[in-house]
Amino acid sequence: MNPIPANSTGWIDEYHQGVRYGLEGEILINEKSKFQQITLIQSKRYGKGLLLNGCWMTAEGQEKHYHECLVHPALCSAKCIDRVLIIGGGDGGTARECLRHKEIAKLDMVEIDGKVIELSKKYLPSLGGKAWQDPRLNVNIQDGISWVANSPNASYDIVIVDGSDPAGPAKGLFNKAFFKDCRRILRPNGIFATQSESPEAFREVHIDIVKTIREVFDFADPLYGWVPMYPSGWWSWTFACIDGPHYKKPILKRAEHISKECEIWSRRWQKGAFEAIPLFIERELNK
Amino acid sequence: MNPIPANSTGWIDEYHQGVRYGLEGEILINEKSKFQQITLIQSKRYGKGLLLNGCWMTAEGQEKHYHECLVHPALCSAKCIDRVLIIGGGDGGTARECLRHKEIAKLDMVEIDGKVIELSKKYLPSLGGKAWQDPRLNVNIQDGISWVANSPNASYDIVIVDGSDPAGPAKGLFNKAFFKDCRRILRPNGIFATQSESPEAFREVHIDIVKTIREVFDFADPLYGWVPMYPSGWWSWTFACIDGPHYKKPILKRAEHISKECEIWSRRWQKGAFEAIPLFIERELNK
Repeated sequence: MNPIPANSTGWIDEYHQGVRYGLEGEILINEKSKFQQITLIQSKRYGKGLLLNGCWMTAEGQEKHYHECLVHPALCSAKCIDRVLIIGGGDGGTARECLRHKEIAKLDMVEIDGKVIELSKKYLPSLGGKAWQDPRLNVNIQDGISWVANSPNASYDIVIVDGSDPAGPAKGLFNKAFFKDCRRILRPNGIFATQSESPEAFREVHIDIVKTIREVFDFADPLYGWVPMYPSGWWSWTFACIDGPHYKKPILKRAEHISKECEIWSRRWQKGAFEAIPLFIERELNK
Repeated sequence: MNPIPANSTGWIDEYHQGVRYGLEGEILINEKSKFQQITLIQSKRYGKGLLLNGCWMTAEGQEKHYHECLVHPALCSAKCIDRVLIIGGGDGGTARECLRHKEIAKLDMVEIDGKVIELSKKYLPSLGGKAWQDPRLNVNIQDGISWVANSPNASYDIVIVDGSDPAGPAKGLFNKAFFKDCRRILRPNGIFATQSESPEAFREVHIDIVKTIREVFDFADPLYGWVPMYPSGWWSWTFACIDGPHYKKPILKRAEHISKECEIWSRRWQKGAFEAIPLFIERELNK
Protein backbone atom coordinates (compact mmCIF):
# COMPACT_ATOMS: atom_id res chain seq x y z
CA MET A 1 0.00 0.00 0.00
CA ASN A 2 1.20 3.45 -0.86
CA PRO A 3 1.12 6.13 1.81
CA ILE A 4 -1.11 9.11 1.15
CA PRO A 5 1.13 12.03 2.05
CA ALA A 6 -0.01 14.79 4.32
CA ASN A 7 -1.49 17.31 1.99
CA SER A 8 0.82 20.18 2.82
CA THR A 9 2.26 20.32 -0.72
CA GLY A 10 -1.02 20.33 -2.62
CA TRP A 11 -0.03 17.15 -4.50
CA ILE A 12 -1.52 13.68 -4.15
CA ASP A 13 0.76 11.05 -5.70
CA GLU A 14 0.74 7.35 -6.44
CA TYR A 15 4.19 5.85 -5.98
CA HIS A 16 5.29 2.83 -8.02
CA GLN A 17 8.85 1.51 -8.25
CA GLY A 18 10.74 4.79 -8.42
CA VAL A 19 8.05 6.60 -10.40
CA ARG A 20 5.32 8.88 -9.10
CA TYR A 21 2.22 10.31 -10.72
CA GLY A 22 0.59 13.20 -8.93
CA LEU A 23 -2.44 15.39 -9.23
CA GLU A 24 -2.60 18.84 -7.73
CA GLY A 25 -5.57 19.17 -5.43
CA GLU A 26 -6.89 18.50 -1.99
CA ILE A 27 -7.98 15.45 -0.07
CA LEU A 28 -11.71 15.40 0.70
CA ILE A 29 -12.00 12.02 2.40
CA ASN A 30 -9.33 9.63 3.62
CA GLU A 31 -10.74 6.73 5.59
CA LYS A 32 -10.21 3.05 6.14
CA SER A 33 -13.03 0.67 5.27
CA LYS A 34 -13.14 -2.95 6.35
CA PHE A 35 -11.05 -3.79 3.26
CA GLN A 36 -8.90 -0.83 2.23
CA GLN A 37 -7.89 2.81 2.53
CA ILE A 38 -10.31 4.95 0.52
CA THR A 39 -9.26 8.44 -0.53
CA LEU A 40 -11.32 10.97 -2.42
CA ILE A 41 -9.71 14.10 -3.76
CA GLN A 42 -10.63 17.25 -5.62
CA SER A 43 -8.04 17.69 -8.39
CA LYS A 44 -7.44 20.73 -10.55
CA ARG A 45 -7.11 18.85 -13.84
CA TYR A 46 -9.53 15.93 -13.69
CA GLY A 47 -12.16 16.96 -11.11
CA LYS A 48 -12.84 14.57 -8.26
CA GLY A 49 -10.76 11.42 -8.06
CA LEU A 50 -10.61 8.15 -6.13
CA LEU A 51 -7.64 6.22 -4.74
CA LEU A 52 -7.74 2.80 -3.05
CA ASN A 53 -4.76 1.92 -0.89
CA GLY A 54 -2.93 4.92 -2.37
CA CYS A 55 -3.38 3.80 -5.99
CA TRP A 56 -5.31 5.84 -8.55
CA MET A 57 -8.61 4.22 -9.47
CA THR A 58 -10.54 6.84 -11.38
CA ALA A 59 -11.33 10.53 -11.79
CA GLU A 60 -14.28 12.37 -13.27
CA GLY A 61 -12.28 13.85 -16.14
CA GLN A 62 -10.50 10.69 -17.15
CA GLU A 63 -12.72 7.73 -16.32
CA LYS A 64 -13.95 7.11 -19.85
CA HIS A 65 -10.43 6.07 -20.92
CA TYR A 66 -10.88 3.05 -18.70
CA HIS A 67 -14.58 2.23 -18.64
CA GLU A 68 -15.33 2.43 -22.35
CA CYS A 69 -12.39 0.15 -23.13
CA LEU A 70 -13.36 -2.49 -20.57
CA VAL A 71 -17.05 -2.57 -21.47
CA HIS A 72 -17.70 -2.01 -25.18
CA PRO A 73 -15.36 -4.52 -26.81
CA ALA A 74 -17.38 -7.16 -24.93
CA LEU A 75 -20.85 -5.66 -25.05
CA CYS A 76 -20.71 -4.52 -28.67
CA SER A 77 -19.43 -7.90 -29.86
CA ALA A 78 -21.37 -10.64 -28.05
CA LYS A 79 -24.35 -12.03 -29.93
CA CYS A 80 -26.58 -11.95 -26.85
CA ILE A 81 -26.12 -9.54 -23.90
CA ASP A 82 -29.20 -10.41 -21.91
CA ARG A 83 -27.51 -11.15 -18.56
CA VAL A 84 -24.36 -9.37 -17.45
CA LEU A 85 -22.18 -9.73 -14.34
CA ILE A 86 -19.73 -7.13 -13.02
CA ILE A 87 -17.29 -8.16 -10.30
CA GLY A 88 -16.02 -5.02 -8.56
CA GLY A 89 -16.68 -1.71 -10.26
CA GLY A 90 -17.90 0.02 -7.11
CA ASP A 91 -17.45 3.51 -8.55
CA GLY A 92 -20.33 2.82 -10.95
CA GLY A 93 -18.57 3.69 -14.24
CA THR A 94 -18.63 0.17 -15.64
CA ALA A 95 -22.32 -0.29 -14.78
CA ARG A 96 -23.13 3.04 -16.44
CA GLU A 97 -21.42 2.09 -19.71
CA CYS A 98 -23.05 -1.37 -19.63
CA LEU A 99 -26.55 0.00 -19.09
CA ARG A 100 -26.28 2.21 -22.17
CA HIS A 101 -26.94 -1.09 -23.95
CA LYS A 102 -30.74 -1.43 -24.07
CA GLU A 103 -30.50 -5.16 -24.78
CA ILE A 104 -29.34 -5.92 -21.24
CA ALA A 105 -32.21 -7.40 -19.22
CA LYS A 106 -30.38 -7.84 -15.91
CA LEU A 107 -27.02 -6.63 -14.61
CA ASP A 108 -25.64 -8.15 -11.42
CA MET A 109 -22.91 -6.10 -9.78
CA VAL A 110 -20.93 -7.71 -6.96
CA GLU A 111 -18.71 -5.31 -5.02
CA ILE A 112 -16.93 -6.45 -1.88
CA ASP A 113 -16.64 -2.99 -0.33
CA GLY A 114 -19.95 -1.19 0.21
CA LYS A 115 -18.06 1.87 1.37
CA VAL A 116 -16.65 2.39 -2.14
CA ILE A 117 -20.18 2.45 -3.57
CA GLU A 118 -21.45 4.76 -0.81
CA LEU A 119 -18.62 7.28 -1.27
CA SER A 120 -18.72 7.08 -5.09
CA LYS A 121 -22.45 7.84 -5.11
CA LYS A 122 -21.83 10.84 -2.90
CA TYR A 123 -18.61 12.28 -4.38
CA LEU A 124 -18.49 10.88 -7.93
CA PRO A 125 -22.17 10.86 -8.96
CA SER A 126 -21.33 11.32 -12.67
CA LEU A 127 -19.57 7.94 -12.73
CA GLY A 128 -22.61 5.83 -11.99
CA GLY A 129 -24.94 8.41 -13.53
CA LYS A 130 -28.41 6.99 -14.05
CA ALA A 131 -27.17 3.42 -13.51
CA TRP A 132 -27.80 3.51 -9.75
CA GLN A 133 -31.52 4.09 -10.38
CA ASP A 134 -31.80 1.64 -13.30
CA PRO A 135 -34.21 -1.19 -12.36
CA ARG A 136 -32.02 -3.65 -14.32
CA LEU A 137 -29.14 -3.12 -11.85
CA ASN A 138 -28.91 -5.55 -8.96
CA VAL A 139 -26.15 -4.49 -6.54
CA ASN A 140 -24.72 -7.07 -4.11
CA ILE A 141 -22.23 -6.18 -1.42
CA GLN A 142 -20.27 -9.39 -1.15
CA ASP A 143 -17.19 -11.28 -2.27
CA GLY A 144 -17.11 -11.66 -6.06
CA ILE A 145 -15.11 -14.87 -5.87
CA SER A 146 -17.83 -16.67 -3.90
CA TRP A 147 -20.53 -15.18 -6.14
CA VAL A 148 -18.85 -16.64 -9.20
CA ALA A 149 -18.22 -19.97 -7.43
CA ASN A 150 -21.89 -20.21 -6.45
CA SER A 151 -23.41 -19.15 -9.78
CA PRO A 152 -24.98 -21.89 -11.93
CA ASN A 153 -23.26 -23.04 -15.11
CA ALA A 154 -23.88 -20.91 -18.21
CA SER A 155 -25.75 -18.18 -16.35
CA TYR A 156 -24.23 -15.01 -17.89
CA ASP A 157 -23.68 -13.71 -21.40
CA ILE A 158 -20.98 -11.34 -20.21
CA VAL A 159 -18.68 -11.48 -17.17
CA ILE A 160 -16.69 -8.30 -16.49
CA VAL A 161 -14.00 -8.10 -13.81
CA ASP A 162 -13.36 -4.50 -12.78
CA GLY A 163 -10.99 -4.95 -9.84
CA SER A 164 -7.97 -3.08 -8.58
CA ASP A 165 -4.36 -4.33 -8.77
CA PRO A 166 -3.77 -7.97 -7.77
CA ALA A 167 -3.09 -7.18 -4.12
CA GLY A 168 -5.44 -6.62 -1.17
CA PRO A 169 -9.10 -7.49 -1.79
CA ALA A 170 -8.62 -7.94 -5.58
CA LYS A 171 -5.85 -10.55 -5.33
CA GLY A 172 -8.14 -13.54 -5.89
CA LEU A 173 -9.53 -12.05 -9.12
CA PHE A 174 -6.44 -13.01 -11.11
CA ASN A 175 -5.89 -16.70 -10.51
CA LYS A 176 -6.75 -19.81 -12.48
CA ALA A 177 -9.45 -21.10 -10.14
CA PHE A 178 -11.35 -17.83 -10.46
CA PHE A 179 -10.97 -17.71 -14.25
CA LYS A 180 -12.20 -21.32 -14.46
CA ASP A 181 -15.36 -20.39 -12.59
CA CYS A 182 -15.83 -17.40 -14.89
CA ARG A 183 -15.62 -19.75 -17.87
CA ARG A 184 -18.06 -22.17 -16.28
CA ILE A 185 -20.75 -19.53 -15.67
CA LEU A 186 -20.41 -18.06 -19.17
CA ARG A 187 -23.08 -18.96 -21.73
CA PRO A 188 -22.13 -20.22 -25.21
CA ASN A 189 -21.03 -17.23 -27.35
CA GLY A 190 -20.46 -15.23 -24.16
CA ILE A 191 -17.49 -12.92 -23.53
CA PHE A 192 -15.28 -12.56 -20.46
CA ALA A 193 -13.51 -9.21 -19.89
CA THR A 194 -11.04 -8.06 -17.25
CA GLN A 195 -8.63 -5.21 -16.74
CA SER A 196 -5.18 -6.78 -17.05
CA GLU A 197 -2.72 -4.17 -15.75
CA SER A 198 0.05 -2.28 -17.57
CA PRO A 199 2.40 -4.04 -20.00
CA GLU A 200 5.08 -1.59 -18.86
CA ALA A 201 4.68 -0.87 -15.14
CA PHE A 202 3.38 -4.38 -14.33
CA ARG A 203 4.98 -6.30 -17.17
CA GLU A 204 5.29 -9.71 -15.49
CA VAL A 205 1.86 -9.47 -13.88
CA HIS A 206 0.31 -8.53 -17.21
CA ILE A 207 1.92 -11.41 -19.07
CA ASP A 208 0.94 -13.81 -16.33
CA ILE A 209 -2.71 -12.70 -16.43
CA VAL A 210 -2.97 -13.08 -20.21
CA LYS A 211 -1.23 -16.47 -20.20
CA THR A 212 -3.44 -17.79 -17.40
CA ILE A 213 -6.62 -16.64 -19.15
CA ARG A 214 -5.40 -18.31 -22.36
CA GLU A 215 -4.91 -21.55 -20.47
CA VAL A 216 -8.49 -21.43 -19.21
CA PHE A 217 -10.34 -20.09 -22.26
CA ASP A 218 -9.90 -21.27 -25.82
CA PHE A 219 -9.58 -17.72 -27.15
CA ALA A 220 -8.09 -14.73 -25.31
CA ASP A 221 -6.39 -11.52 -26.39
CA PRO A 222 -5.13 -8.37 -24.68
CA LEU A 223 -6.15 -4.96 -25.95
CA TYR A 224 -3.98 -1.90 -25.29
CA GLY A 225 -5.00 1.64 -24.44
CA TRP A 226 -4.36 4.52 -22.12
CA VAL A 227 -5.28 5.53 -18.60
CA PRO A 228 -2.99 8.50 -17.99
CA MET A 229 -3.38 8.42 -14.19
CA TYR A 230 -2.33 4.75 -13.85
CA PRO A 231 1.35 3.70 -13.58
CA SER A 232 2.99 4.32 -17.00
CA GLY A 233 -0.34 5.51 -18.49
CA TRP A 234 -0.29 2.41 -20.68
CA TRP A 235 -3.06 -0.02 -19.80
CA SER A 236 -4.55 -3.29 -20.99
CA TRP A 237 -7.81 -5.19 -20.86
CA THR A 238 -8.08 -8.85 -21.77
CA PHE A 239 -11.07 -10.49 -23.45
CA ALA A 240 -11.81 -14.18 -23.70
CA CYS A 241 -14.31 -16.57 -25.26
CA ILE A 242 -14.92 -20.29 -25.33
CA ASP A 243 -15.91 -20.70 -28.95
CA GLY A 244 -14.17 -18.11 -31.13
CA PRO A 245 -12.68 -14.62 -30.74
CA HIS A 246 -16.06 -12.90 -30.87
CA TYR A 247 -14.61 -9.92 -28.98
CA LYS A 248 -12.75 -8.89 -32.12
CA LYS A 249 -15.89 -8.36 -34.19
CA PRO A 250 -18.14 -5.59 -32.89
CA ILE A 251 -21.64 -5.68 -34.35
CA LEU A 252 -21.99 -2.68 -36.66
CA LYS A 253 -25.42 -1.43 -35.65
CA ARG A 254 -24.74 -1.72 -31.92
CA ALA A 255 -21.34 -0.08 -32.27
CA GLU A 256 -22.72 2.85 -34.22
CA HIS A 257 -25.31 3.55 -31.55
CA ILE A 258 -22.90 3.19 -28.62
CA SER A 259 -19.99 5.15 -30.08
CA LYS A 260 -22.14 8.26 -30.47
CA GLU A 261 -21.55 9.04 -26.80
CA CYS A 262 -18.01 7.63 -26.51
CA GLU A 263 -14.80 9.60 -26.14
CA ILE A 264 -12.27 6.86 -26.89
CA TRP A 265 -14.01 3.71 -28.06
CA SER A 266 -15.04 3.11 -31.65
CA ARG A 267 -14.99 0.00 -33.86
CA ARG A 268 -11.91 1.41 -35.56
CA TRP A 269 -10.17 2.12 -32.26
CA GLN A 270 -10.94 -1.37 -30.98
CA LYS A 271 -9.61 -3.02 -34.12
CA GLY A 272 -6.38 -1.04 -33.83
CA ALA A 273 -5.97 -1.52 -30.09
CA PHE A 274 -6.03 -5.34 -30.40
CA GLU A 275 -3.23 -5.11 -32.99
CA ALA A 276 -1.11 -2.49 -31.18
CA ILE A 277 0.63 -5.07 -29.06
CA PRO A 278 4.20 -4.06 -28.20
CA LEU A 279 6.70 -6.51 -29.65
CA PHE A 280 8.25 -7.39 -26.26
CA ILE A 281 4.84 -8.60 -25.06
CA GLU A 282 4.08 -10.47 -28.28
CA ARG A 283 7.38 -12.33 -27.89
CA GLU A 284 6.63 -13.22 -24.27
CA LEU A 285 3.13 -14.46 -25.09
CA ASN A 286 4.44 -16.65 -27.90
CA LYS A 287 7.06 -18.34 -25.73
CA MET B 1 9.59 26.32 -18.45
CA ASN B 2 9.20 24.05 -15.48
CA PRO B 3 11.39 24.59 -12.46
CA ILE B 4 13.74 21.75 -11.56
CA PRO B 5 13.23 21.48 -7.82
CA ALA B 6 16.12 21.38 -5.43
CA ASN B 7 16.85 17.71 -5.09
CA SER B 8 16.22 17.45 -1.37
CA THR B 9 13.31 15.05 -1.85
CA GLY B 10 14.98 12.60 -4.21
CA TRP B 11 12.30 13.21 -6.86
CA ILE B 12 12.67 15.00 -10.18
CA ASP B 13 9.27 15.92 -11.66
CA GLU B 14 7.85 17.42 -14.80
CA TYR B 15 4.86 19.62 -14.02
CA HIS B 16 2.07 20.03 -16.55
CA GLN B 17 -1.32 21.62 -15.86
CA GLY B 18 -2.00 20.23 -12.42
CA VAL B 19 -0.29 16.89 -13.10
CA ARG B 20 3.23 15.82 -12.25
CA TYR B 21 5.31 12.87 -13.33
CA GLY B 22 8.39 12.17 -11.25
CA LEU B 23 11.33 9.83 -11.21
CA GLU B 24 13.22 9.02 -8.05
CA GLY B 25 16.88 9.74 -8.48
CA GLU B 26 19.52 12.43 -8.38
CA ILE B 27 20.50 15.31 -10.60
CA LEU B 28 23.91 14.86 -12.26
CA ILE B 29 24.04 17.99 -14.41
CA ASN B 30 21.81 21.04 -14.43
CA GLU B 31 23.10 23.79 -16.69
CA LYS B 32 21.89 26.43 -19.06
CA SER B 33 23.04 26.25 -22.67
CA LYS B 34 22.65 29.10 -25.13
CA PHE B 35 19.13 27.76 -25.86
CA GLN B 36 17.72 25.95 -22.85
CA GLN B 37 18.09 24.44 -19.39
CA ILE B 38 19.65 20.97 -19.72
CA THR B 39 19.27 18.50 -16.86
CA LEU B 40 20.71 15.02 -16.65
CA ILE B 41 19.62 12.68 -13.90
CA GLN B 42 20.32 9.22 -12.61
CA SER B 43 16.94 7.57 -11.98
CA LYS B 44 16.23 4.37 -10.12
CA ARG B 45 13.76 2.97 -12.62
CA TYR B 46 14.95 4.02 -16.07
CA GLY B 47 18.68 4.68 -15.67
CA LYS B 48 20.01 8.04 -16.79
CA GLY B 49 17.50 10.56 -18.11
CA LEU B 50 17.42 13.94 -19.85
CA LEU B 51 15.17 16.95 -19.31
CA LEU B 52 15.11 20.14 -21.39
CA ASN B 53 13.54 23.18 -19.74
CA GLY B 54 12.19 20.87 -17.05
CA CYS B 55 10.38 18.56 -19.48
CA TRP B 56 11.23 14.88 -19.83
CA MET B 57 12.95 14.11 -23.11
CA THR B 58 14.30 10.60 -22.76
CA ALA B 59 15.81 7.99 -20.46
CA GLU B 60 17.98 4.96 -21.11
CA GLY B 61 15.34 2.48 -20.00
CA GLN B 62 12.47 3.99 -21.90
CA GLU B 63 13.82 5.66 -25.03
CA LYS B 64 12.83 2.91 -27.46
CA HIS B 65 9.14 3.67 -26.85
CA TYR B 66 9.75 6.97 -28.59
CA HIS B 67 12.55 6.39 -31.10
CA GLU B 68 11.30 3.18 -32.71
CA CYS B 69 7.86 4.70 -33.26
CA LEU B 70 9.19 7.88 -34.84
CA VAL B 71 11.70 6.18 -37.14
CA HIS B 72 10.50 2.81 -38.42
CA PRO B 73 7.04 3.63 -39.76
CA ALA B 74 8.86 5.97 -42.14
CA LEU B 75 12.05 4.03 -42.81
CA CYS B 76 10.41 0.63 -43.19
CA SER B 77 7.80 1.98 -45.57
CA ALA B 78 9.50 4.36 -48.04
CA LYS B 79 10.55 2.81 -51.34
CA CYS B 80 13.95 4.51 -51.27
CA ILE B 81 15.78 5.59 -48.08
CA ASP B 82 19.05 6.73 -49.59
CA ARG B 83 19.18 10.22 -48.06
CA VAL B 84 17.70 11.00 -44.66
CA LEU B 85 17.42 14.24 -42.66
CA ILE B 86 16.86 14.52 -38.91
CA ILE B 87 15.96 17.92 -37.45
CA GLY B 88 16.75 17.88 -33.72
CA GLY B 89 17.38 14.49 -32.15
CA GLY B 90 20.48 15.61 -30.25
CA ASP B 91 20.38 12.66 -27.85
CA GLY B 92 21.28 10.36 -30.75
CA GLY B 93 18.46 7.83 -30.40
CA THR B 94 16.75 8.71 -33.67
CA ALA B 95 20.05 8.56 -35.59
CA ARG B 96 20.81 5.16 -34.04
CA GLU B 97 17.49 3.68 -35.11
CA CYS B 98 17.85 5.19 -38.60
CA LEU B 99 21.34 3.83 -39.13
CA ARG B 100 20.21 0.29 -38.40
CA HIS B 101 18.88 0.56 -41.97
CA LYS B 102 21.79 -0.44 -44.22
CA GLU B 103 20.14 1.17 -47.25
CA ILE B 104 20.79 4.69 -45.93
CA ALA B 105 23.73 6.26 -47.79
CA LYS B 106 23.81 9.59 -45.98
CA LEU B 107 22.11 10.88 -42.85
CA ASP B 108 22.17 14.62 -42.12
CA MET B 109 21.39 15.53 -38.54
CA VAL B 110 20.76 19.19 -37.72
CA GLU B 111 20.64 19.99 -34.01
CA ILE B 112 20.48 23.58 -32.81
CA ASP B 113 22.05 22.92 -29.42
CA GLY B 114 25.52 21.38 -29.52
CA LYS B 115 25.46 21.11 -25.75
CA VAL B 116 22.68 18.50 -25.93
CA ILE B 117 24.82 16.34 -28.20
CA GLU B 118 27.93 16.81 -26.05
CA LEU B 119 26.14 15.86 -22.82
CA SER B 120 24.22 12.99 -24.44
CA LYS B 121 27.44 11.46 -25.78
CA LYS B 122 28.94 11.67 -22.30
CA TYR B 123 26.00 10.66 -20.10
CA LEU B 124 23.67 8.72 -22.45
CA PRO B 125 26.10 6.86 -24.72
CA SER B 126 23.68 3.98 -25.31
CA LEU B 127 21.25 6.33 -27.03
CA GLY B 128 23.48 7.21 -29.95
CA GLY B 129 25.33 3.90 -29.71
CA LYS B 130 27.47 3.30 -32.79
CA ALA B 131 25.71 6.07 -34.72
CA TRP B 132 28.15 8.75 -33.58
CA GLN B 133 31.00 6.86 -35.28
CA ASP B 134 29.03 5.88 -38.39
CA PRO B 135 30.62 7.53 -41.47
CA ARG B 136 27.15 8.00 -42.99
CA LEU B 137 26.22 10.45 -40.19
CA ASN B 138 26.81 14.13 -40.88
CA VAL B 139 26.12 16.22 -37.74
CA ASN B 140 25.48 19.94 -38.11
CA ILE B 141 25.08 22.27 -35.16
CA GLN B 142 22.69 24.83 -36.54
CA ASP B 143 19.10 25.93 -36.84
CA GLY B 144 16.99 23.24 -38.51
CA ILE B 145 14.53 25.75 -39.89
CA SER B 146 17.22 27.50 -41.95
CA TRP B 147 18.69 24.15 -42.99
CA VAL B 148 15.34 23.08 -44.42
CA ALA B 149 14.77 26.50 -46.01
CA ASN B 150 18.18 26.33 -47.71
CA SER B 151 18.00 22.71 -48.89
CA PRO B 152 17.40 22.13 -52.62
CA ASN B 153 14.04 20.81 -53.82
CA ALA B 154 13.59 17.02 -53.64
CA SER B 155 16.83 16.39 -51.80
CA TYR B 156 15.73 13.86 -49.12
CA ASP B 157 13.87 10.57 -49.14
CA ILE B 158 12.97 10.94 -45.48
CA VAL B 159 12.63 14.04 -43.28
CA ILE B 160 12.27 13.37 -39.54
CA VAL B 161 11.54 16.11 -37.03
CA ASP B 162 12.59 15.07 -33.53
CA GLY B 163 12.05 18.27 -31.58
CA SER B 164 10.79 19.07 -28.11
CA ASP B 165 7.42 20.68 -27.31
CA PRO B 166 6.38 23.67 -29.44
CA ALA B 167 7.92 26.27 -27.13
CA GLY B 168 11.48 27.55 -26.82
CA PRO B 169 13.88 26.51 -29.59
CA ALA B 170 11.43 23.96 -31.09
CA LYS B 171 8.57 26.42 -31.62
CA GLY B 172 9.26 26.98 -35.31
CA LEU B 173 9.16 23.25 -36.06
CA PHE B 174 5.39 23.13 -35.95
CA ASN B 175 4.16 25.83 -38.32
CA LYS B 176 2.94 25.81 -41.90
CA ALA B 177 5.96 27.56 -43.41
CA PHE B 178 8.29 24.93 -41.97
CA PHE B 179 6.08 22.03 -43.08
CA LYS B 180 5.91 23.55 -46.60
CA ASP B 181 9.69 23.56 -46.78
CA CYS B 182 9.77 19.95 -45.57
CA ARG B 183 7.40 19.01 -48.38
CA ARG B 184 9.49 20.91 -50.92
CA ILE B 185 12.74 19.13 -50.01
CA LEU B 186 11.10 15.68 -50.00
CA ARG B 187 11.69 13.44 -53.02
CA PRO B 188 8.79 11.71 -54.79
CA ASN B 189 7.67 8.71 -52.72
CA GLY B 190 9.42 10.22 -49.69
CA ILE B 191 8.01 10.27 -46.16
CA PHE B 192 7.88 13.08 -43.62
CA ALA B 193 7.71 12.16 -39.89
CA THR B 194 7.40 14.27 -36.76
CA GLN B 195 6.54 13.76 -33.13
CA SER B 196 3.13 15.39 -32.69
CA GLU B 197 2.56 15.64 -28.93
CA SER B 198 -0.06 13.98 -26.73
CA PRO B 199 -3.71 13.75 -27.81
CA GLU B 200 -4.58 14.04 -24.12
CA ALA B 201 -2.14 16.42 -22.38
CA PHE B 202 -1.69 18.64 -25.47
CA ARG B 203 -5.00 17.97 -27.19
CA GLU B 204 -5.39 21.29 -29.03
CA VAL B 205 -1.71 21.41 -30.01
CA HIS B 206 -1.89 17.85 -31.32
CA ILE B 207 -4.99 18.48 -33.42
CA ASP B 208 -3.49 21.68 -34.76
CA ILE B 209 -0.27 19.92 -35.80
CA VAL B 210 -2.11 17.13 -37.62
CA LYS B 211 -4.48 19.54 -39.37
CA THR B 212 -1.65 21.81 -40.47
CA ILE B 213 0.37 18.90 -41.85
CA ARG B 214 -2.75 17.68 -43.72
CA GLU B 215 -3.12 21.13 -45.28
CA VAL B 216 0.45 20.99 -46.55
CA PHE B 217 0.80 17.34 -47.58
CA ASP B 218 -1.73 15.37 -49.60
CA PHE B 219 -1.65 12.44 -47.17
CA ALA B 220 -1.04 12.62 -43.41
CA ASP B 221 -2.03 10.46 -40.45
CA PRO B 222 -1.27 10.39 -36.74
CA LEU B 223 -0.11 7.19 -35.08
CA TYR B 224 -0.65 6.61 -31.35
CA GLY B 225 1.64 4.98 -28.83
CA TRP B 226 3.16 5.34 -25.39
CA VAL B 227 5.99 7.27 -23.78
CA PRO B 228 5.30 6.72 -20.08
CA MET B 229 7.54 9.61 -18.94
CA TYR B 230 5.79 12.24 -21.12
CA PRO B 231 2.66 14.10 -19.95
CA SER B 232 -0.23 11.57 -19.89
CA GLY B 233 2.04 8.79 -21.24
CA TRP B 234 -0.02 8.83 -24.41
CA TRP B 235 1.96 10.07 -27.39
CA SER B 236 1.64 10.56 -31.13
CA TRP B 237 3.77 10.78 -34.22
CA THR B 238 2.47 12.06 -37.54
CA PHE B 239 3.56 10.81 -40.95
CA ALA B 240 2.95 12.49 -44.29
CA CYS B 241 3.49 11.90 -48.00
CA ILE B 242 2.87 13.75 -51.21
CA ASP B 243 1.69 10.89 -53.38
CA GLY B 244 -0.06 8.24 -51.29
CA PRO B 245 -0.07 7.03 -47.66
CA HIS B 246 3.12 4.99 -48.12
CA TYR B 247 3.77 5.20 -44.37
CA LYS B 248 0.94 2.74 -43.80
CA LYS B 249 2.59 -0.09 -45.73
CA PRO B 250 5.87 -1.30 -44.24
CA ILE B 251 7.94 -3.39 -46.66
CA LEU B 252 7.89 -6.96 -45.38
CA LYS B 253 11.56 -7.87 -45.79
CA ARG B 254 12.85 -4.63 -44.29
CA ALA B 255 10.38 -4.82 -41.41
CA GLU B 256 11.34 -8.39 -40.55
CA HIS B 257 15.00 -7.45 -40.34
CA ILE B 258 14.46 -4.28 -38.31
CA SER B 259 11.93 -5.68 -35.84
CA LYS B 260 14.37 -8.35 -34.67
CA GLU B 261 15.97 -5.76 -32.40
CA CYS B 262 12.86 -3.74 -31.59
CA GLU B 263 11.01 -3.62 -28.29
CA ILE B 264 7.80 -1.93 -29.39
CA TRP B 265 7.69 -1.58 -33.16
CA SER B 266 6.51 -4.33 -35.49
CA ARG B 267 4.46 -4.29 -38.68
CA ARG B 268 1.52 -5.50 -36.65
CA TRP B 269 1.99 -2.84 -33.98
CA GLN B 270 2.24 -0.09 -36.61
CA LYS B 271 -0.90 -1.23 -38.37
CA GLY B 272 -2.79 -1.19 -35.08
CA ALA B 273 -1.35 2.11 -33.87
CA PHE B 274 -2.58 3.99 -36.96
CA GLU B 275 -6.10 2.67 -36.31
CA ALA B 276 -6.14 3.20 -32.53
CA ILE B 277 -7.21 6.81 -32.86
CA PRO B 278 -9.37 7.93 -29.95
CA LEU B 279 -12.84 8.91 -31.08
CA PHE B 280 -12.61 12.47 -29.73
CA ILE B 281 -9.59 13.10 -31.96
CA GLU B 282 -11.15 11.44 -35.00
CA ARG B 283 -14.17 13.73 -34.59
CA GLU B 284 -11.97 16.83 -34.33
CA LEU B 285 -9.92 15.89 -37.39
CA ASN B 286 -13.05 15.30 -39.47
CA LYS B 287 -14.56 18.70 -38.62
